[in-house]
Amino acid sequence: MTNMRVNEERLWADVMALAAITDPARPYTRRSFSPLFLEGRAWLRARFEAAGLACRIDTAGNLIGRREGNADRTRTIMLGSHSDTVPDGGRFDGIAGVLVGLEVLRVLAESGQTLSHALELVDFLAEEPSEFGLSCIGSRAMSGRLTPLHLEYAAPWGEKLGPAIARMGGTVAALHEARRGDIAAFFELHIEQGVILEQDAIEIGVVEAIAGISRIELLFTGRADHAGTTPMGRRRDAAVAAADLIGFVARTASALAASGQGHVAATVGVIEISPNASNVVPRSARLVVDLRVSQRAVAEAFLVSLRQAAEQAADAARVVLERFEILSDTPPTPCDASLRKLLSQAADGLGLSAIPIVSGAGHDAAHIAAVAPSSMIFIPCRDGRSHDPEEWAEPAALAAGAAVMLHAVLARDAQEPPLLIED
Amino acid sequence: MTNMRVNEERLWADVMALAAITDPARPYTRRSFSPLFLEGRAWLRARFEAAGLACRIDTAGNLIGRREGNADRTRTIMLGSHSDTVPDGGRFDGIAGVLVGLEVLRVLAESGQTLSHALELVDFLAEEPSEFGLSCIGSRAMSGRLTPLHLEYAAPWGEKLGPAIARMGGTVAALHEARRGDIAAFFELHIEQGVILEQDAIEIGVVEAIAGISRIELLFTGRADHAGTTPMGRRRDAAVAAADLIGFVARTASALAASGQGHVAATVGVIEISPNASNVVPRSARLVVDLRVSQRAVAEAFLVSLRQAAEQAADAARVVLERFEILSDTPPTPCDASLRKLLSQAADGLGLSAIPIVSGAGHDAAHIAAVAPSSMIFIPCRDGRSHDPEEWAEPAALAAGAAVMLHAVLARDAQEPPLLIED
Repeated sequence: MTNMRVNEERLWADVMALAAITDPARPYTRRSFSPLFLEGRAWLRARFEAAGLACRIDTAGNLIGRREGNADRTRTIMLGSHSDTVPDGGRFDGIAGVLVGLEVLRVLAESGQTLSHALELVDFLAEEPSEFGLSCIGSRAMSGRLTPLHLEYAAPWGEKLGPAIARMGGTVAALHEARRGDIAAFFELHIEQGVILEQDAIEIGVVEAIAGISRIELLFTGRADHAGTTPMGRRRDAAVAAADLIGFVARTASALAASGQGHVAATVGVIEISPNASNVVPRSARLVVDLRVSQRAVAEAFLVSLRQAAEQAADAARVVLERFEILSDTPPTPCDASLRKLLSQAADGLGLSAIPIVSGAGHDAAHIAAVAPSSMIFIPCRDGRSHDPEEWAEPAALAAGAAVMLHAVLARDAQEPPLLIED
Repeated sequence: MTNMRVNEERLWADVMALAAITDPARPYTRRSFSPLFLEGRAWLRARFEAAGLACRIDTAGNLIGRREGNADRTRTIMLGSHSDTVPDGGRFDGIAGVLVGLEVLRVLAESGQTLSHALELVDFLAEEPSEFGLSCIGSRAMSGRLTPLHLEYAAPWGEKLGPAIARMGGTVAALHEARRGDIAAFFELHIEQGVILEQDAIEIGVVEAIAGISRIELLFTGRADHAGTTPMGRRRDAAVAAADLIGFVARTASALAASGQGHVAATVGVIEISPNASNVVPRSARLVVDLRVSQRAVAEAFLVSLRQAAEQAADAARVVLERFEILSDTPPTPCDASLRKLLSQAADGLGLSAIPIVSGAGHDAAHIAAVAPSSMIFIPCRDGRSHDPEEWAEPAALAAGAAVMLHAVLARDAQEPPLLIED
């Protein structure tokens, strides 16, 4: 192992300094495309430059700091995450990944050691759902997935995404140039946003896969009858069908999660009853089911059984399954096996406990996986809180994550020559 | 049987004429305490007087038309219902009972026959939930149940109930005089507001009991976690507990309703989830359970098992049953057995099909039962619709109901001398 050491205090001070750039009325809020976001970016760019990185905004509006490798034309090892937040968000989601990356590159610069590969640190544009109704805008572009249709998406104030990216410093006419073919490895650190590491007292989660997300909207329609006068046997109660389905989703997902078929989580988070009056039998019930799985076959089987269960629930309650609409359905993304091995070995070498873990949430790394070997580590966060001002990660947890990243980057650099393969 | 005959066309014309006194923008709306209500009352009073009735407003604001019996001091046979409506209501709920009563008294007057008992026709004040947050105001007063506390209830425009009753022609200082001790029998006709008579092609429902109503508010509180990252086994999903309870309510009420323990109907009509976002595990779920039973013991047993089921549902979902509050709990009111027999015999004598039925909805007759033998009949209404402009009863159904009332009144009058027992 190298004797390079992460500076925990410096890293922590950076996190707190960026957190201070927030809407004072709603800490911690630094929404993508806002003046505050640009203020955060300006602070970040100065920090990148102070670490010796050459900075640019790519055509998709990503902020990139680069340190060349010791060969003329090298492939790139990239680190990064995002600096935007949800409204009333936290100080670590995304930010931790950018600033840990900065600390890693800073330690490397201070060591005087030049790697064979070029190194890049990226702050992806708008990872969180933006006012344009789209998330992961920068990483979509970097993987060639940001389409002309997306650029027409409009914010509530009328601005379209294309001009908004230009306002962030991007060049929409040359958007294709943001797509990368030179990335040898991508590393992203993130807080877990869950309770597994904390509850099991594990320091590092090495992400095996980023779950696929399927969202399904269901509408049961029955009849709004008088709650007092309508006999039980003659009702068409949409809420009874909905309740049946909520039970099915919880039972089925729990059984699948316990069956060793990877990460499975399913939630009915939206329930809307109409007319929602105590003395009226519910006429309609609208549900949204959110399904996250790490194995695609599980999602496909779940969707089939969900539809059957919904039809059975409708029949049993004498109501109609008026809508069963798959709103979105993205497949799971496995993380690169070779990079996962390097990350596990780095944790081992540092004496840190580590487990494989599945990301239930979406991340920029899932998009980058389309154009490069992509990987993530998670660090514990308090009580699983995220997208919340209570979001918290310990300074030592951030430093441990940075150390793992540093050693994995060194190991990756040593693995093979940085041969540039033109895209 | 008498050969007196109800005039179906005249009765129908009255119903349509009163229906025309409505807020033109929201047919059929004639809210209690409104100028339109007073306009309806003025029309009614003129019709009462045209039928030879002596009219007065009692101290509680009930409109009463009276025809004396053929003895000096007689007890009273009373018929009636209410002329106020819910917003966007129908043309029959309450109104049918008042105008059928009018037709019965008109036919009796035309026959030239004087009964032993005095006859009264009443339009109770504000049976529907009023702007003062109270229903059955006139019948509460007539049974001595309108309290000084009620008189302090205020409408959204600031007026208190006491002055509002005075505005309707009542005399609040003498409210106790509205309480009656001289009623030998009370008869009320109402549309069923349900589907039993229509679906089974029955002409008359003889009400056995007016169901008791219990309303229970439940609040399950769990934890709002990330829908993607929180393993199924570590969730505290309030919606799962709520779904469990909704299933329990439907199953238990269905089984009880099929067990021959009288009318049992239970509804979860209000379901409110927070934060109600597709990617967040529900933190809280608020439910309101509405229970209607004709046997008090069933309500008591149901409430005990509901609480147990709620606690079990909370435990199973690892959430807390934060609230289990009985918002209201009124016992069922049996209708007078002797009057029910007279009503059934009247239907039989007229060749009309009749069945015993339980009223799941509340009615003025339930209050009058506290001071007098009280009874009701139901006539079929289309598709069970009520509190709705689509509310509909056939002219022939109204006339059939009036004929049953007429013959039951004659039979009651013949049963015993109209001895006045002072209250």
